[in-house]
Amino acid sequence: MTNDLPIGVFDSGVGGLTVAKEIMLRLPKESLLYFGDTARVPYGNKSEETVIAYSRQIARFLCSHSVKAIVIACNTASAFALDTLSAELPVPVIGVVKPGAKAAAAITKTGNIGVIATSGTIRSGLYGRYLRSISPDVHVFGQACPLFVPLVEEGLQNDPVTRTMAERYLTPLLSKGVDTLVLGCTHYPLLTEVIGEVAGPDVTLVNPAYETAKELASMLAGRGLLKTSDTPSAHRFFVSDGEEQFRRFANSILPCELEEADVNRKVFS
Amino acid sequence: MTNDLPIGVFDSGVGGLTVAKEIMLRLPKESLLYFGDTARVPYGNKSEETVIAYSRQIARFLCSHSVKAIVIACNTASAFALDTLSAELPVPVIGVVKPGAKAAAAITKTGNIGVIATSGTIRSGLYGRYLRSISPDVHVFGQACPLFVPLVEEGLQNDPVTRTMAERYLTPLLSKGVDTLVLGCTHYPLLTEVIGEVAGPDVTLVNPAYETAKELASMLAGRGLLKTSDTPSAHRFFVSDGEEQFRRFANSILPCELEEADVNRKVFS
Repeated sequence: MTNDLPIGVFDSGVGGLTVAKEIMLRLPKESLLYFGDTARVPYGNKSEETVIAYSRQIARFLCSHSVKAIVIACNTASAFALDTLSAELPVPVIGVVKPGAKAAAAITKTGNIGVIATSGTIRSGLYGRYLRSISPDVHVFGQACPLFVPLVEEGLQNDPVTRTMAERYLTPLLSKGVDTLVLGCTHYPLLTEVIGEVAGPDVTLVNPAYETAKELASMLAGRGLLKTSDTPSAHRFFVSDGEEQFRRFANSILPCELEEADVNRKVFS
Repeated sequence: MTNDLPIGVFDSGVGGLTVAKEIMLRLPKESLLYFGDTARVPYGNKSEETVIAYSRQIARFLCSHSVKAIVIACNTASAFALDTLSAELPVPVIGVVKPGAKAAAAITKTGNIGVIATSGTIRSGLYGRYLRSISPDVHVFGQACPLFVPLVEEGLQNDPVTRTMAERYLTPLLSKGVDTLVLGCTHYPLLTEVIGEVAGPDVTLVNPAYETAKELASMLAGRGLLKTSDTPSAHRFFVSDGEEQFRRFANSILPCELEEADVNRKVFS
């Protein structure tokens, strides 16, 4: 039965686990097949052509394991590769950008929306295009925050240096009067506390991971693809490098505990 | 004539250009064939197995273009892959770790040597092993500085945040009384100013890029491989992603100007 197949989820590395977590919480019966491209992380500073090539390899790998849908749990890959993968793959594909944009457009009152993301995602301009296609009158202000990913990966979420960088990155957006701020990179929800403090109480933070899980649930329901059997969920994880490090990071984020055997290596080349 | 073949130089990305620069200055007649693995950068946080696999692919590509020697202009790749490549390749291979270690051992008076590098290089322990094999009595103190590479790549060399991180990374080493500090990552020479200020005048900085160019010159001379013809040097550059960005960075570092046509893309997969 197609309904009982797992959902494929992929990211450049560990960041997409914030999306996997939201899917697990919203759809606890579903099984996930996750791929983290830890041998080639990060994607945020790489070209469109390269990100599409990597995304295509991974999506084909997931399809070869019979998934019923694919979630691109990486903003850069969503920005660059969603259209290509949607056109090429035999299963429905969801990115994190559209659901995040939809939520932001619904929330803003002033019409001034900030987007923080990697250089690649900002350069793509995709959040702005989606947002204006939903609400032609919104003003979108993008800001690349290239140091946030390494700061998170070094565990410096609550460090003064991270706060300094957050102030520097957010000040230009705040001076534009944004009332809604999209956390446009899957690592950034791990910085919610410091970003929220710097942005202040008048700015609503939008977490595309949460919105994507909602959109996925409604897409699966609409297509009659929700899991029907009562077997417990069973998740599998693949990485292209560093299984052990990935497992430790995953166990600090996910609502379930991964054993060693749950994480396998798959190398492309 | 073998003597007139180019020297192959490779790195995970742009950092190895600091090594290419020193080679161009010391051996201005020689031609370089440089490969920067910008589609998979950085190497510093990836596993030994993956770094060896990437290094092997690149070294074979360089050999397929007939080089007379190969310089591994990346500390992480030198630490993990030098022995493998030396054993497998038909040309002499030099890494940046041994020349850096040799210089540090010759300079230190107190015998306390600090090494700053990526997590991968520090984890490999290779600087310590080389240093102790040269001078059994030295004490080697390693410190991973994972934020230095993204800070350099964001152009924040002279930023207060970089100074804060330099103070944080160097304080434990300075408290051990190191009098010699190896800049064990090819990006770090670009931070010489701030590192020198924080370390103070009593600490000598060792730039393995400079030492490697010296070692290369003496190795080529010893094997009778120095260029003999009077044709001008002609350098070629290959990257796995982002030719334009690479060229801009190269033109800010190298003592020669690269044209668009000098940088080509080579994709592995």
